[in-house]
Amino acid sequence: MENLKQVTRSNKEEKNKRKIVVLRWGHRPQRDARLTTHVALAARALGASGFLLSDTVDEKIRETVEKVTRNWGGKFFFEMGTAWKSAVRDWKAKGGIVVHLTVYGENIQTSNVLDRIKNLRKDILVIVGSQKVPKDFFSNDVSDFNVSIGSQPHSECAALAVFLDRFFEGKELVKEFKKAKIKVVPQERGKKTIVEC
Amino acid sequence: MENLKQVTRSNKEEKNKRKIVVLRWGHRPQRDARLTTHVALAARALGASGFLLSDTVDEKIRETVEKVTRNWGGKFFFEMGTAWKSAVRDWKAKGGIVVHLTVYGENIQTSNVLDRIKNLRKDILVIVGSQKVPKDFFSNDVSDFNVSIGSQPHSECAALAVFLDRFFEGKELVKEFKKAKIKVVPQERGKKTIVEC
Repeated sequence: MENLKQVTRSNKEEKNKRKIVVLRWGHRPQRDARLTTHVALAARALGASGFLLSDTVDEKIRETVEKVTRNWGGKFFFEMGTAWKSAVRDWKAKGGIVVHLTVYGENIQTSNVLDRIKNLRKDILVIVGSQKVPKDFFSNDVSDFNVSIGSQPHSECAALAVFLDRFFEGKELVKEFKKAKIKVVPQERGKKTIVEC
Repeated sequence: MENLKQVTRSNKEEKNKRKIVVLRWGHRPQRDARLTTHVALAARALGASGFLLSDTVDEKIRETVEKVTRNWGGKFFFEMGTAWKSAVRDWKAKGGIVVHLTVYGENIQTSNVLDRIKNLRKDILVIVGSQKVPKDFFSNDVSDFNVSIGSQPHSECAALAVFLDRFFEGKELVKEFKKAKIKVVPQERGKKTIVEC
């Protein structure tokens, strides 16, 4: 599997392909197990290159995500345990920017924040937190942009999904996941999959 | 609070305002507590009129969602315990249609399924399931449309968010939530809220 550093390096080589990596902060093993798994799988399915579970480890989530990637194809790295501060510092040192998704940020619908982010044409680390994130996340040192998906409390999983869908303008939903063992064939009714073992 | 029947009735009076209600099937209390709460809050924040936790009850989720609605305003009903079959039957009897979000359905990006749904100009019950849903969900008797948010496994919370954002074309993110006690003032940095007690 690739890791955070490799993704950042390869971005330098392929300047036109902007990549998004999702950093999940504040995961509480057990309580957040299913939610964080969903955030990681949504990141993968909706076009992100990788997922960093910061400041903690959770082997079960790693196993689930890596199993999905093995079976359903594509490249997607899963990293965990790195301190958020050093992940942000490394990301910025390599020229990437940081977008913090928060209900308090600029509204993605009513402001031009998404255009400003896109115009920079840089790789993006998207930080999604849980209920109470460190105040630092809002500061210049950490976030280049604070973005809200509406001004109502809801879900980091939902917020990430809308952000990625808008950022990639739907192209993420037609992306081919290479070396997939399982493929779904979209249908009006029923389930159709192609399985290669 | 309003309930499912009241929403359906009021739709008849306001024909131009199509409403969406989310039916969550397969909730397992404890294990899914946080995830289902996020699905319900995403439904509310992203423009749905109400949420039905079918076939089971979970008082904690109801309390959380109703507390958010009391504090953050707007109308949003939360109902639970109704059997999915009778909810679907009642919904259809009143002229509504059913959209089942599933990885196996027509891809929202590559097909014209969203246009076909919108063109009907009817109220929509969106069914989101969990890992293994009854086969019936795919049948004519239940779903008018089976819609996939990409053909990769991810999250009902993420899928619902993308569906609602695309259905309402972003208008849901500028909607005013009336009688709110708490309002966020979007900002580039920091947190700003207006609280009325």
